[in-house]
Amino acid sequence: MIRIGIVGYGNLGRGVESAVNHAEDMELAAVFTRRDPSGVETLTAAPVMAYSEIDKMQDAIDVLIICGGSATDLPETTPELAAKFNVIDSFDTHANIPEHYANVDKAAKAGGKVGIISCGWDPGYFSIARLYAEAALPNGESYTFWGRGVSQGHSDAIRRIEGVKDARQYTVPIESALDRVRAGEHPEFTAREMHLRDCYVVAEEGADLEAIEQAIKTMPNYFEPYDTTVTFITQEELDRDHSGLPHGGSVLRAGDTGGYNNTVEFSLNLESNPFFTGSILTAAARAAYIMNSEGQCGAKTLFDVPPAYLSTHTREDLLAHML
Amino acid sequence: MIRIGIVGYGNLGRGVESAVNHAEDMELAAVFTRRDPSGVETLTAAPVMAYSEIDKMQDAIDVLIICGGSATDLPETTPELAAKFNVIDSFDTHANIPEHYANVDKAAKAGGKVGIISCGWDPGYFSIARLYAEAALPNGESYTFWGRGVSQGHSDAIRRIEGVKDARQYTVPIESALDRVRAGEHPEFTAREMHLRDCYVVAEEGADLEAIEQAIKTMPNYFEPYDTTVTFITQEELDRDHSGLPHGGSVLRAGDTGGYNNTVEFSLNLESNPFFTGSILTAAARAAYIMNSEGQCGAKTLFDVPPAYLSTHTREDLLAHML
Repeated sequence: MIRIGIVGYGNLGRGVESAVNHAEDMELAAVFTRRDPSGVETLTAAPVMAYSEIDKMQDAIDVLIICGGSATDLPETTPELAAKFNVIDSFDTHANIPEHYANVDKAAKAGGKVGIISCGWDPGYFSIARLYAEAALPNGESYTFWGRGVSQGHSDAIRRIEGVKDARQYTVPIESALDRVRAGEHPEFTAREMHLRDCYVVAEEGADLEAIEQAIKTMPNYFEPYDTTVTFITQEELDRDHSGLPHGGSVLRAGDTGGYNNTVEFSLNLESNPFFTGSILTAAARAAYIMNSEGQCGAKTLFDVPPAYLSTHTREDLLAHML
Repeated sequence: MIRIGIVGYGNLGRGVESAVNHAEDMELAAVFTRRDPSGVETLTAAPVMAYSEIDKMQDAIDVLIICGGSATDLPETTPELAAKFNVIDSFDTHANIPEHYANVDKAAKAGGKVGIISCGWDPGYFSIARLYAEAALPNGESYTFWGRGVSQGHSDAIRRIEGVKDARQYTVPIESALDRVRAGEHPEFTAREMHLRDCYVVAEEGADLEAIEQAIKTMPNYFEPYDTTVTFITQEELDRDHSGLPHGGSVLRAGDTGGYNNTVEFSLNLESNPFFTGSILTAAARAAYIMNSEGQCGAKTLFDVPPAYLSTHTREDLLAHML
C-alpha cells in the first residue's frame, strides 16, 4: 500500500481524500492542517495532524499531496516539503511554472525525492492532450476552451467590488468558435470570440446595481475583453442554484498530414472541479511513488510520467485489456 | 538528426515518409521494400532499397518504422528486426498483442534495442486516452466508438462475395448512443446500438443484387450484429466519391468522484487514417531513439513512453508554453 499524506484540507483536499479512499493500492496516513486539527473533520475519519508535526511523519508517508493555492501557498510549501517527501501539487499559475519547477527540482534533488508539479487538468491533463496532439500533428494549431464552469478568480474579483455581497462567475465557451476549429478553419480568435463571462451577483441592500454592473463589465483583463452578462439574484438563489463547482473544457488541434486535414479533441465535463483535480493528483502520487522507487529524483510534470505509472493495472492487464 | 528507415511502402509507409519529411529532427535514410526497388517511387525521392539488404544499414539507421499488416507480416517482421534495430510498428490485432509483445520483447532485449509496438491510434492514442481517463475516474465505464470511417477489413469481406467487383464500407457511430454516455447514463450497449455499417458496392455486370445484399447483411460477425445499409454504385462513383481513407472516433469515460459525475472524451476526425497513423509512428520513433539512448531495451508500448519523448520541444519550452 502506498501511504499518502494530504497537506491542506479545503475542497481539493477533500477531493484527494475521496480518491485515495477509492484507490485499492493506497491508504491515507494523515491530513495535515495549519488550522487547529481538533476543529477539522474529515470525510473518512482520517487522522488530522498539525502541519508543524509533519517532519515526524517522514517514515510513515510515501507521498504527500499538497492541496494549497498557487498564489502564495504552493510556491513556498512545495519546495519546502520536496526536500523531505515525494510530493504532488496542482500549481496552476502558468507564467510562473518554470520558476516553481526550478525551486522544486533543487529541493527534491537535494533530498533524493520526486516532486510532480502542476498535476491538475489545466495544467495537467489538458497539457498532455496538447502535447500528444502536437506530436501527431506538428503542422497545425492548438486551441483551449474552458467551461462551462466556475472561475474562482473571476468570482473573487466581483466580490471585491463595492456593494457586492457574493458572486459566482461562469466561463462559457462559444460553441460556434469550437465548431470552426473542428471544421479545420484554423481561425485566429480574439478573447471575446472564444469565451463569454456569465455572472450571478448578490448585491448589498441599497447598493447601486447599475454601478456594480458597469464595474464588472469594464474591469480590465478579467471582464473588459469579453462579452459579459450580469444577473442579480438573492443569496438564497445563489446558494440554491450556484453552490457547485462544475468545470471542464476542450483542447483541440487541427492540423495537416501530407495534405489531409485532421482534428484531435480532448474534452472534460466535470460536476466537481476540485474532486476531479484531486483524483488526478492521486493518480500522480502513484507515479511519484514508482519513479522514486526506481531511483529517480527531482521535479517532474505529467510530461515525464509514462502513462502506465498512473494506473493500478499490471502490464499484463494493460496489454490484454486496455491497449 | 534521427535517421529513420521505413519498411514497407504502401499507404502507411507514405504517411510515415511525409511525417519524417516534416520532422525537424529526423532524416529518412531509406525505404525498404520486398518488391523490386526500381519499381518503387517515393514521395520525397528517398532512396529505396531491397529488404534483403537491410542488415547492411544497421549503422546508418537509428529507428526502423515497420509499415506492414498485422495478420501475417508484423508478427514475423517486427521480432526479426527488433533484434537488430530499434523498431516501431502499428500491430493492431488486439487479441494477439500479449503474444506479439512477448516475441518483440525477447528479440529486442537480446539485441539491446527498443521496440515500441501498437503505436497507431487504436491501439495507440485511443489506448492512452482510455488509460488516462480510467486513472482519473477509476469508478466508471469506458466506451470506444469508431468512425465515421472506412474499415478495410469489412470492405475486403464484401469484395469476397460472389458478384462483387469492388466495395467500400463505412463504420458509423450512432450519435444518440454517444449522447447517452456523455449524459452520464452508463448504458450497456449491444453492438447494434453503438455502430451502423454503411456499404457502397460495385456489382459485376448481371450479378444478383438482392443476393449480394442478403449475403452482406447476414454475414456473421462482420455485418449480422449491426444495422447495415447497402447502396449499389458504379465503379466510377466509387472511385470518385469513396477513394479516401477517412476515419476517427471517440473514447469516452463517464465516472464518479465522491458523488460527482464527470465525463472525459477524446475524439479524432481524420481525413486520412494511414497518414495520421504514420505521423504517430514517427513521433514514437523519436521516443524509441531517446529511450534506447538512455540504455533501455525490450518491447514497449505508448503506455511506457513519457509524453515528452514524443515531442521535439525542449523541457524549457514545454514548461513555459505547453504545460
